[in-house]
Amino acid sequence: MKKIVILGSTGSIGTQTLQVIEFLTQKWEITALTANKNVDLLAKQAKKYNVKFAVIRDESLALRLKKQLKDTNTEVLTGNRNLEYVASLSDTDLVVNAIVGAAGLKPSIAALKSGNLLGLANKESMVIGGRIINKIIKSNDSEILPIDSEHNAIFQIIKDHNKKDIKKILITASGGPFLKLPIEKLQDVTVKEALNHPNWDMGNKITIDSATMMNKGLEVIEAHWLFEQPYAKIKAVIHPESIIHSMVEFKDNAISAEMGVSDMRLPIQNVLTYPNRYKSSVKELDLYNVGKLNFLRPDLDKFPALKLAYEAGKEGGSFPAVLNAANEVAVSLFLQKEISYVQIPQLIENVMNKHKKITNPEVSELFSIDKWSRDIAREVAKCL
Amino acid sequence: MKKIVILGSTGSIGTQTLQVIEFLTQKWEITALTANKNVDLLAKQAKKYNVKFAVIRDESLALRLKKQLKDTNTEVLTGNRNLEYVASLSDTDLVVNAIVGAAGLKPSIAALKSGNLLGLANKESMVIGGRIINKIIKSNDSEILPIDSEHNAIFQIIKDHNKKDIKKILITASGGPFLKLPIEKLQDVTVKEALNHPNWDMGNKITIDSATMMNKGLEVIEAHWLFEQPYAKIKAVIHPESIIHSMVEFKDNAISAEMGVSDMRLPIQNVLTYPNRYKSSVKELDLYNVGKLNFLRPDLDKFPALKLAYEAGKEGGSFPAVLNAANEVAVSLFLQKEISYVQIPQLIENVMNKHKKITNPEVSELFSIDKWSRDIAREVAKCL
Repeated sequence: MKKIVILGSTGSIGTQTLQVIEFLTQKWEITALTANKNVDLLAKQAKKYNVKFAVIRDESLALRLKKQLKDTNTEVLTGNRNLEYVASLSDTDLVVNAIVGAAGLKPSIAALKSGNLLGLANKESMVIGGRIINKIIKSNDSEILPIDSEHNAIFQIIKDHNKKDIKKILITASGGPFLKLPIEKLQDVTVKEALNHPNWDMGNKITIDSATMMNKGLEVIEAHWLFEQPYAKIKAVIHPESIIHSMVEFKDNAISAEMGVSDMRLPIQNVLTYPNRYKSSVKELDLYNVGKLNFLRPDLDKFPALKLAYEAGKEGGSFPAVLNAANEVAVSLFLQKEISYVQIPQLIENVMNKHKKITNPEVSELFSIDKWSRDIAREVAKCL
Repeated sequence: MKKIVILGSTGSIGTQTLQVIEFLTQKWEITALTANKNVDLLAKQAKKYNVKFAVIRDESLALRLKKQLKDTNTEVLTGNRNLEYVASLSDTDLVVNAIVGAAGLKPSIAALKSGNLLGLANKESMVIGGRIINKIIKSNDSEILPIDSEHNAIFQIIKDHNKKDIKKILITASGGPFLKLPIEKLQDVTVKEALNHPNWDMGNKITIDSATMMNKGLEVIEAHWLFEQPYAKIKAVIHPESIIHSMVEFKDNAISAEMGVSDMRLPIQNVLTYPNRYKSSVKELDLYNVGKLNFLRPDLDKFPALKLAYEAGKEGGSFPAVLNAANEVAVSLFLQKEISYVQIPQLIENVMNKHKKITNPEVSELFSIDKWSRDIAREVAKCL
């Protein structure tokens, strides 16, 4: 029986990973589950799957979790350190990192350093720490299987190809809920409207990122590090139906594409069963019902967050970490109705303008930069 | 320097193969070229590429070819036997079979029996002789690289996959020039209209086959043998833009697709350079300019030829040979304005109705069946 650790098991990707495991005939032993604050769901999951370790990141909630799990064999752990501990457990076949945000970086590093195979849904690991992670992968001969539907698609396409043959990576983007809204109406959009994603059922943070297209920007940076391609070769293509999950153009001008319904259980299962395939609970794509697939060039004036992400990525060094942290604060302030939708990229740009680049930041520096960016973002937000 | 033999070098695929060879930086030595009747172009090609053998199939034209090549080192050969001879030349890296029609079968067999790698554009080889060819491939450990854009796409997708994981092969079809014409207007269409293909620049026979959708039917049978999949798993999907060259659905409901502009030099180059990729003279696909990709279910009432092909394929044995020969006669009579467009499938169905199946026909039987079908088709045509 294969053994899996799921970091962030109470979130959207985490719960769907558990659904996929339940569906698969190949059985998995779930060794550890972790959550940020959702004690009740974590306790329920820990009991159901009889896990060895349940980690609640927020230390103030550890006692509550212990109470809920007192009559079980599950050991309750808490704090960031223990996320890294369970990520690096030996005798593990796969660590799924479905943590949201920068907090995912250190557990990714821990998993890879210990030689564990990493199923990566935490894009911030690569956005912030891509350079460091690629170094670890090379020195430890470890491997990442991307879970993001776009990167999973690209991974599937290029795994059997020579990287030198890649001309362009075409990351598809739904364009989010505001694709057709005139640019001048963007200043009035509400949180509720921004959370109403046309195709994907995802967590709140990523749904807002999708509405600003920052999500695509972060994915461009993620792709840069995952597939080791220059930014000039990575293009975002608006494809409102989200049926083509991404494409790769080769130097002979042939394009390979991966398609399917918009259901994260497809890439999750792909990672769990890789390199094999099994029946899935994902619906079959009905192309006749879809009828048309549309493609549009992204409007960078309308979606400045995408432009900022390219700038941060090309600038490199500490800039992606600044971008990411400022964006996390901006999204959180937007969800709390403290800033407007159009102020999200304004806030990020302001923070980026105040930043002095550090060329090759180490992990500890990345977290100071992350903190600096958050502090400045909160400051700047007051003056917007 | 790699050595190539091109069978049918004066036709559409043959001339485009020569164009690709001229474009590639990797140089090829062209050992032999063959043509059916086009002496003048064959002589010109033979001189230009300084080939060892020029084969004119029509024996009555051999003298004329000899005259045109009298001051060269090219040996002039003639007749079907010599097509097979040059297809089986030793020290050959690739035989491209771009012969049109049933005449391509024996040269394909000769190439594979001699262990030569076969680049196959002659779909009739598989339609008529698929069972025999697959037997030879297995006993001789030889290989086919499909040149048809659809089969080349499918080949590229499934080469790195386990065949057991295939759920469906989705062969795309442009739908031809009459896709939007109401069914009742089909009886009035002219040869000129039928030859006006919206996307592909091809020979006359295949262009008419595309207008009746028999081309797609023959491709379904070809795919059945090339990829060893049952007919229930092979679906034709109308995709008028011809941008997606074909798709494969796997059992997890993920779909892989190969895309590009409609230019046969793309799959030809793919076969010539396989498994490597080089820059090509094929234009880059501009998805923004294309804008939309459409998908429609084929209307079997409107395109009965496709239905007949599925029936012949599922019936198996000698039926695909009967279908193919009757279709060749029907298309030829249509091009000569002796029968109408709607009479093409009527003629084929009539011939199929008169046929008694031979279960596992050998090559010689296939040619008697072919002749029988042609004779009956001409008879039936008189009474339509």
